[in-house]
Amino acid sequence: MTETKDARFADRLAAALDRSGSPVCVGLDPVLERLPDAVRTEHTDPARAIEAFCRGVIDAVADHVGVVKPQSACFERFGSAGVRALEATCAHARSRGLVVILDAKRGDIGVSAQHYAAAATGMGADAITVNAYLGPLTIEPYLDAGLGVFVLVRTSNPDSDAVQSVPLAGAEGDDSAARTVAEMMATHVHTLGLARLGDVGRSDVGAVVGATKAADGKRLRERMPDQVFLIPGYGAQGGSAEDVRAMLRPGRAAAGACGVVVNASRSVLYPATETAQPSDWHHAVAAAARAFATDVGSILKTSKTPS
Amino acid sequence: MTETKDARFADRLAAALDRSGSPVCVGLDPVLERLPDAVRTEHTDPARAIEAFCRGVIDAVADHVGVVKPQSACFERFGSAGVRALEATCAHARSRGLVVILDAKRGDIGVSAQHYAAAATGMGADAITVNAYLGPLTIEPYLDAGLGVFVLVRTSNPDSDAVQSVPLAGAEGDDSAARTVAEMMATHVHTLGLARLGDVGRSDVGAVVGATKAADGKRLRERMPDQVFLIPGYGAQGGSAEDVRAMLRPGRAAAGACGVVVNASRSVLYPATETAQPSDWHHAVAAAARAFATDVGSILKTSKTPS
Repeated sequence: MTETKDARFADRLAAALDRSGSPVCVGLDPVLERLPDAVRTEHTDPARAIEAFCRGVIDAVADHVGVVKPQSACFERFGSAGVRALEATCAHARSRGLVVILDAKRGDIGVSAQHYAAAATGMGADAITVNAYLGPLTIEPYLDAGLGVFVLVRTSNPDSDAVQSVPLAGAEGDDSAARTVAEMMATHVHTLGLARLGDVGRSDVGAVVGATKAADGKRLRERMPDQVFLIPGYGAQGGSAEDVRAMLRPGRAAAGACGVVVNASRSVLYPATETAQPSDWHHAVAAAARAFATDVGSILKTSKTPS
Repeated sequence: MTETKDARFADRLAAALDRSGSPVCVGLDPVLERLPDAVRTEHTDPARAIEAFCRGVIDAVADHVGVVKPQSACFERFGSAGVRALEATCAHARSRGLVVILDAKRGDIGVSAQHYAAAATGMGADAITVNAYLGPLTIEPYLDAGLGVFVLVRTSNPDSDAVQSVPLAGAEGDDSAARTVAEMMATHVHTLGLARLGDVGRSDVGAVVGATKAADGKRLRERMPDQVFLIPGYGAQGGSAEDVRAMLRPGRAAAGACGVVVNASRSVLYPATETAQPSDWHHAVAAAARAFATDVGSILKTSKTPS
């Protein structure tokens, strides 16, 4: 397991997950109205408040998880000042040894994609979420810039069915053919990822697959054997341990090799803190991150021989 | 034809196009390496250079076109300083009475979509390009924020066929059924747009349809009778007047009612200037914008009775 600056994203990600012992990621989705009172009192400027909050969260979770995922929208809503807060947040996460997945869902062609890739690398991101509706080759500029990518394949929101579950022609009687738009996207992702394989067959080209779509997850795993699945929707949105289990790479029980990264945002950032003093929010966040990592880690322990 | 601050986007857009007399839009895609020497000499800071260039372009084109389309990626690549330049660019375009379509191709769910919408309105944009792979309802937060949207339906890059032209099941023998992924998206766009109709049947929900995909354009127009098509790819990328003509709304010859907005970026921003003094770049840009508007305007004049 190499982990130099030159290692490819897939291997750096695996090393970070192995260090934490659980394939989890904390989403940094700062929402001003939900910040702890202590933070809002100290920082009246919104962008400075979310930056301070994210810095505190990163410090609280860094001993328990290996990966964070800043949600670009939460920062961009405060304009250039918010983007400055995002830059500081990514830099601080890197300084704590965390892998940074920028959740920006970008998607554009040619030189515009190159610009978005340059923006993400300039920000200090290790990887970025991308939307490939414009075509699978629009993903390459991010890879060429040294980023890992997670391509939106099957998202956790109910309305995604209206696009991603639409049935394709030509699948009747052909088990290898993609049956839905999501499966077509999965095929593109797998093909694109073949040229970007790291140790033990993980690709720099990953996929976003919602935990709430586990019925599709198993079939998507068959179509994307090399991909790391970035999984939102676990817990609060209804995805269960069983749903995650269906998406694991068969026979891989180590955190870095199991092929999933399960994300939690709100449940870690804004835990119920009735028993804690308001000033204890760091401890509440740390405890929530630890419990989340333990919970997801236990899924691996009970699935060494997946069916 | 109303045009108050409260008018809906579709009507404000139509008024701007009618004023300029041609359904055109200038894309603001500033690329540092291509800026006029005079700008690069005066501004060594990249973000300030692209801001100064865009300000000059806006002043040069404001008498000839009614709409500009800043490409967010070109600004974001310079981080928060670039986003500050984007804010200044949008503000200056508004101050010159131009309609601003932010080309950001955003797409996310729930509260994240709300944040992106807030970012765009905070920036002073009138409309935004969006990606609906996550589902048609993910578009609503932008509309609820008062923005117009242009949903990516059929993009001009060759590789888009690998996703957007994929054939769907169930279209055999049913002329009303969507035949491709792009047509499925078009159906969603039309349905979503029905609740957002302005004067003479134009919707706040528009569509991006590349000029290079005119074979699809005519059928997409049938599926999206109320939509304004934002059309990239004219000229440099190979789209012709005939291609644009196939996408006009039948029987509508006025710039604001014809149902298209044709975009040009590089051909206006970086015109060949062999004969001009380097300091004359404003004049060259103005001349290119005027020629582009005249060229596209002539398409309308020759198509009062489309076949």
